[in-house]
Order: sequence, then C-alpha cells, then structure tokens
Amino acid sequence: MSMENKIPKPIRCKAAVCRGPGEALRIEEVVVAPPEDHEVRIKILCTSLCHSDLTFWRMKDFPGIFPRIFGHEAVGVVESVGGHVERLEAGDMVVPTFLGQCDATEDACVDCRSERSNMCSKLPFTVTPGMPRSHGGAASRFTDAAGRPVHHFLNVSSFSEYTVVDAAHVVRVDPTVPPEKACLLSCGASTGVGAAGKVAGVEAGSTVAIFGLGAVGLAVAEGARIRGASRIIGVDLNPDKFELGKKFGLTDFINPKELGDRSINEVIIEMTNGGADYCFECIGLASVMKDAFQSSRQGWGKTIILGVEMHGAPLCVAAGEILWGKCIMGSLFGGIKPKIDIPIFVKQYLNKELQLDEFITHEIGFEDINKAFDLLVEGKSLRCTIWMDK
Amino acid sequence: MSMENKIPKPIRCKAAVCRGPGEALRIEEVVVAPPEDHEVRIKILCTSLCHSDLTFWRMKDFPGIFPRIFGHEAVGVVESVGGHVERLEAGDMVVPTFLGQCDATEDACVDCRSERSNMCSKLPFTVTPGMPRSHGGAASRFTDAAGRPVHHFLNVSSFSEYTVVDAAHVVRVDPTVPPEKACLLSCGASTGVGAAGKVAGVEAGSTVAIFGLGAVGLAVAEGARIRGASRIIGVDLNPDKFELGKKFGLTDFINPKELGDRSINEVIIEMTNGGADYCFECIGLASVMKDAFQSSRQGWGKTIILGVEMHGAPLCVAAGEILWGKCIMGSLFGGIKPKIDIPIFVKQYLNKELQLDEFITHEIGFEDINKAFDLLVEGKSLRCTIWMDK
Ligand SMILES: NC(=O)c1ccc[n+]([C@@H]2O[C@H](COP(=O)([O-])OP(=O)(O)OC[C@H]3O[C@@H](n4cnc5c(N)ncnc54)[C@H](O)[C@@H]3O)[C@@H](O)[C@H]2O)c1
Ligand SMILES: NC(=O)c1ccc[n+]([C@@H]2O[C@H](COP(=O)([O-])OP(=O)(O)OC[C@H]3O[C@@H](n4cnc5c(N)ncnc54)[C@H](O)[C@@H]3O)[C@@H](O)[C@H]2O)c1
Ligand SMILES: [Zn+2]
Ligand SMILES: [Zn+2]
Ligand SMILES: [Zn+2]
Ligand SMILES: [Zn+2]
Repeated sequence: MSMENKIPKPIRCKAAVCRGPGEALRIEEVVVAPPEDHEVRIKILCTSLCHSDLTFWRMKDFPGIFPRIFGHEAVGVVESVGGHVERLEAGDMVVPTFLGQCDATEDACVDCRSERSNMCSKLPFTVTPGMPRSHGGAASRFTDAAGRPVHHFLNVSSFSEYTVVDAAHVVRVDPTVPPEKACLLSCGASTGVGAAGKVAGVEAGSTVAIFGLGAVGLAVAEGARIRGASRIIGVDLNPDKFELGKKFGLTDFINPKELGDRSINEVIIEMTNGGADYCFECIGLASVMKDAFQSSRQGWGKTIILGVEMHGAPLCVAAGEILWGKCIMGSLFGGIKPKIDIPIFVKQYLNKELQLDEFITHEIGFEDINKAFDLLVEGKSLRCTIWMDK
Repeated sequence: MSMENKIPKPIRCKAAVCRGPGEALRIEEVVVAPPEDHEVRIKILCTSLCHSDLTFWRMKDFPGIFPRIFGHEAVGVVESVGGHVERLEAGDMVVPTFLGQCDATEDACVDCRSERSNMCSKLPFTVTPGMPRSHGGAASRFTDAAGRPVHHFLNVSSFSEYTVVDAAHVVRVDPTVPPEKACLLSCGASTGVGAAGKVAGVEAGSTVAIFGLGAVGLAVAEGARIRGASRIIGVDLNPDKFELGKKFGLTDFINPKELGDRSINEVIIEMTNGGADYCFECIGLASVMKDAFQSSRQGWGKTIILGVEMHGAPLCVAAGEILWGKCIMGSLFGGIKPKIDIPIFVKQYLNKELQLDEFITHEIGFEDINKAFDLLVEGKSLRCTIWMDK
C-alpha cells in the first residue's frame, strides 16, 4: 500500500440485488464498506454468469438466502486495501475467486503447501454467506438503502460496481490481458481446463466423454484438446452445443434424447470400445453422474464430478461396479490453486495455447443483467460478458 | 508338458458340495473332467474361506446358483495340463486366482499390457459360473454321483481334492514357500496388501482408517505398515480384532458400538485432524462405504472400496462432498496382476518383509470344512487353513 493512500471510506454505488429465490435482480444503490484487515475492495470491470449462480438463485432453503448479491466470475481493479494486505495494491488488475489460497509463505496451511489439494484449510470454503474470516457469522460489507445488510455470495459478489473480497481470494493478473477473457478464468474456464489437466490428468491418445456442454464442459474439452486426447465426445440435450464445441476439440456429439431405447453408456462403451478413459459430469444432476460412471472404462476409467447437484440428490452407483477398477473423483475449481494457476492460464492465453475467446457468446451492459440469466437458462449462451460501465 | 505325460483321464475324488443357499456343505464323490485346451487340473493342497464365499453361499437369487463347489483361496500342484498350455506343467506348485491375466506375450490384452489395470479384457471377470473361455455358458468340469454337473465358483472351486482352472488363472510359485502361506496370497492377503500399495499408494507418514478387520482389512494394515503409514486406525464391531491387528501395524481401534451419540466420521476426523488420508472399506456394507468416505480428508482423501456389498445395496454419498477434492475408488484383488505380483509377495514373505503367518488363526481337515464357515461367521477366525489330506 503506497503511503499517499487515504483511509478508505464507504462507497455508494450500484449493485444488482436479488431479493427472493428465482426473482429478477434489481439494480439498487448500496453502500460498500471499506475493506477490513486482510481484505481488498475491488472495482469490477466485467462479470459473467455461471450455472452455480443459477443454482443458488433458485434455492428456497438455506444456504439459499436473500437479499443477496450474486456473481462469482469477474475481473476488476483493486480500489483500496485493508490492513495486513501485503501483495496487492490499489490499481492492480485482479481476478477474484470463490476458492481461497492462503499465502505461500511459511505459515500457509498444509493444503496450500501440498501439491495434492486446492482446499485451503485456513480459510475453508463454504457455500454459506459471510466473509471468510468472519467465522461462521454472516458478516457483510454491503448495506442497502434501508440500511440493512445484503448477503455475499461465494466470497465474491461481483454483481456490484464495487465489492469487498478477502485477499486470499484475489489473484493479480497481467494487465495486458483483455478483461473479459480474464473474467472467464475466475470460475468456469479454469474449472474445466483444470479438471482435465490437474484432476483427471488426461493423456495424449485417451478418450474423453463430457456430459453437459456449457462453459465448464467445453473448458474440459479445451483442456483435453490441449493434452492431446484422441476422442472427445460431448453429451448434451441441446444440439446447438456441438457446433460451439467443435472449436474446443469435440470430435463427437450425442443427444441423449435421440438414442431410442439405447442407454447413453451403451452408446459410449460401443464408440470407445469399452468405455471412455475419462468421463466428466458438468451439469449437476446425480442421474447423469451415474450415467458418466457407467460410461467409464473398466480397469482404469475415471469419472470426474464438476457439477453442483441442483436438487441436493445423492450420488449413487452400483457398489459392485466400482470394484471393476473404476474411480469417481470430484473437485472445486478444477483442482487449481488460484494464485499459481490463473497466471499460468493467462500466459497460455496470451501465447495462443489456450482458447478463451469462443466462450464469450454475448456481451451486455450491467443494467441488462437479467438478460444474462435468460440466455443461460435458455441454453443460448456459454458466457455473456456483463460490462459494468456500459 | 513332458513327452511321457499320458492323456489325462477323469478323476474321481472328494469335493465339498453346497446344494442350497446357506446349507452346510456335504463331502461327496465327484468326477473331475480332464483339463481342456488352456486349462490345468490342480490337486489342491490346502484352501481357506474368504468372506466372498459366504456372500455367494447365502445368495438365494442368481448369480447365487446351486449345486456349487465354493472356495477360491487355495494352493495346489498341477496334476495335468490341457492343450496350448505353455508355461505350466505337472508338478508345478501353483496358486489359482479368481482374476485372470492373459499371457504377457504380444497378444496379451490391452489391460494386461497396461500398468493401470488388472481387469483382463480377453477373459473378463464375471461372478457367474462357468469356465472363462466358455463364453457365458455354465460349462462345468465337475459331475456328481448322479451324473449331473456341479457349478464352479469364481473360476477356482477349491473345495475339492481336484479342480480344473484356466491357465490364465494359475500362478506358479516358489515351491519352498509353505503351502498354507501361499494359500493366503490366492485372495485375501494379496487383496489387502495390494490395495494399500497399488490402488491407494499409501505413503510414509500418512493416516489410514480401515473399516472391517478380517483378513482383507488386516492385510490392508500390513500393506500400510510396510509403506510407513504413521497411523493405522482399525474399525470393527468385534473388539478381539484389535489384538490380532496390532501385529499388522494397527495403532488405534474404534468400536462403532461404543461411540454413544458421536458418529464414526466425527471421531476419525478428530483423531486425524481433518480426516484420514486413506479409508478402506473391507466389510461389504454400503452404509460403511459412506462412513469411510465421510471419514476421509478434504483436499486429497481417498476411499478405497474392497468389500463386496452383501445385499446388493448401492453406494451413495453426498454429491456435494465429493467436490471437496475427495475420491472413491475400488478394486478387485487389490489392483494386483496375479502372475507378476504374487511371486513378488512370496519373495517378500520369504525375506520376512511381508507378514503372513498371523493371518492363520485355525487349521482343520477337509472333512471339517463346515467348521471353517462357523468360525468366519462368528468372527473367530481370520483365516482357517483347510488341509485336503488331513
Ligand atoms: N466444481 C466447480 O468448481 C464448478 C465451477 C463452476 C461450475 N460448476 C458447475 O458446473 C455445472 C455446469 O456449469 P455451466 O456454467 O457450464 O452450466 P451451463 O448451464 O452453461 O451448461 C450446462 C449444460 O448442460 C446441459 N444439460 C442440462 N441437462 C442435461 C441433461 N440431462 N443431459 C445432457 N445435458 C444436459 C445444458 O443443455 C447445458 O448445455 C453446474 O452444475 C455448475 O454449478 C462447478
Ligand atoms: N475386492 C476384492 O477383490 C475382495 C477380495 C476378497 C474379499 N473381498 C471382500 O472383502 C470383505 C472382507 O472379507 P474378509 O474375508 O476379510 O471378511 P471377514 O468376515 O473376515 O471380516 C469382516 C470384518 O468386518 C467386521 N464387521 C462386520 N460388520 C461390521 C460393521 N457394521 N462395522 C464394523 N465392522 C464390521 C467383522 O467383525 C469382521 O471382522 C468382504 O466383503 C469380501 O467379500 C473383496
Ligand atoms: Zn462458477
Ligand atoms: Zn491455505
Ligand atoms: Zn476372496
Ligand atoms: Zn488380459
């Protein structure tokens, strides 16, 4: 923090507040408190909508909670920093992330020090509202016009011109990257690309089946393409997704509605001569998680769960089938460590090794934010960039 | 096959036949046909009872099928060989195995050639009766006194003085190993030791929780001990298993009946400061598979399923919990390749690196085979050696 910095004051600005499950957002004036210790306040440049927003937006029971400011895929510029923030300063271009990573110093937690985990145990991830260090309390930095607190969402709450985020959830990025591309790395694209690489470890020549071809599923395709998968089968109810997906390496497409009396796993087992090496669930339906598992190969097939189950249904598979050398694994954020891997993805994008442009199918201004909901619900968009200044 | 070998004739001998679900075995005279192409006939030296025998012995519906000759953990001597058997000859000391491995020649299947799989795809494992190359038919080499076929079990059927086994299911072992020790490697001990090493990859210093302390569970402990696990927690309803288990490295014991209103996963999470790195299910109950999963650590915890679900119940876990970086995997035979790994285990036993002696808690003669069932059902034995000649 440079010496000239003033002590930050509350900021009055516009936010898209959701006041009840499934209700349209309303642009309201809110007051955003100054960042406290270990926090930064960010001016959002642009944000986009991920399916996880939809899932919590529709949720009637806790952890569905209202009023709330959604949004967790974004990019912005640090406006001010609180105490004990050492590696960030006003003016930094940053990507906020729903998952935290404590600093890679000596007192980083065992998870952040380990190669194997991305689940920081110092600031454990929860889907309940509040600031990461508020220890279970629903502490908020947002106040509405009536002076009442508005809940945060997934540690980010980017549907606001300004937001306060814990420094452990903020990644500084190369300011030459176009903001709308960096924004994608804040959740969906990183989750999919990371899952193909870090979680599954897809190898050259392997076969991959992806259930659900939203941004997450197609980012899995992109990750698998980069790693040289020989066959990347996409499964979606929406046939338009195949055309979009070809750019990310999809070689085949299956519409489960068009199989007649054949099951999806029968078809994939036949296409891959025994089952896919890697099956990814990128929808959020327990029934599809089971389909993915059944489509995976005996001996070494891995099923990777990325979808957030929409209805809270349990994941169930035949207990005997897993004995056939199969494996089910899951991850948040594609197993990536935000502060290490997002800058790598940015570099790969700038080097044209990683494709991001094609994830952006629409761009709108902040006032039209409900349009982004319609587009995602109707399956018309992959990602719709929501520009705060337009 | 040496030149002097005569063409093998049918052999009349004693077998313990089971004629209905849960019924005591009866020693009957059976005729054992000569081995056909790719088969060998084995004179069993000793055999033992594994919980998987109990599960199928109790099974009222298909693949429970009767009359049947159970037994799949055994050691013997090759009596004669059929055509196209190249690497085995009469007099070889061998361990038959329920899982096959096609020959490591150019035409071995992709699974047998891969490091990652032990599920031979040329002779796929099934729990239905019949010879591996009989292509679904319930072909049998056993005929009872009335001239009717008696079903095989898990490709071995060792509760008979002689049995016929496919050469892909036969491992030649160093004849200096005591037969009752080699016998253990035919299923239970290999499964547990293999799972700790090959499937889980337990590392030095890691924490392990084992649910079910039969021979399989304690072999997991032995495997984890060899690999230097720092803490090996055993969970069993039978408190006698702790004393037996200490020799195999158990450091802690939990009796789920004595927890009051605390859940097993709460207790393990507290003991291990976050959950065990590796949790093994070695009972065969879907409810315990879930307990094991919930006791595994966020970030990198692996749950390894070895138990054969006794009631056919599905394995169900919270779909959200797997996203926390968890993994569930399963394996048959502990992920080992029988022809490669069993000879290694024999060598490790002879070098005193691998403990096997303590698995044998009882020894009986063939006529008393039902005693072995009682001992295992009552939880009194780990393994009871059943000597064919006594
Ligand atoms: N694990 C993580 O860290 C993480 C991160 C981001 C998103 N997610 C989750 O990933 C999932 C996908 O997110 P997204 O933003 O790509 O969503 P999306 O809505 O853009 O895409 C979902 C796709 O699934 C398809 N689909 C829906 N039901 C289907 C069915 N029964 N069979 C086949 N296809 C079906 C839709 O047509 C759509 O193309 C969601 O569950 C989201 O919550 C998880
Ligand atoms: N995956 C494989 O290849 C493979 C190979 C061999 C055996 N198995 C299976 O492994 C399992 C164990 O076999 P085993 O021969 O060691 O059996 P076992 O009967 O010797 O041991 C089972 C143990 O589980 C304990 N137990 C039972 N219910 C329990 C509960 N609710 N909570 C805690 N403990 C409980 C018993 O007291 C006993 O000590 C069986 O399901 C068997 O079919 C699998
Ligand atoms: Zn998201
Ligand atoms: Zn941490
Ligand atoms: Zn067994
Ligand atoms: Zn094979």
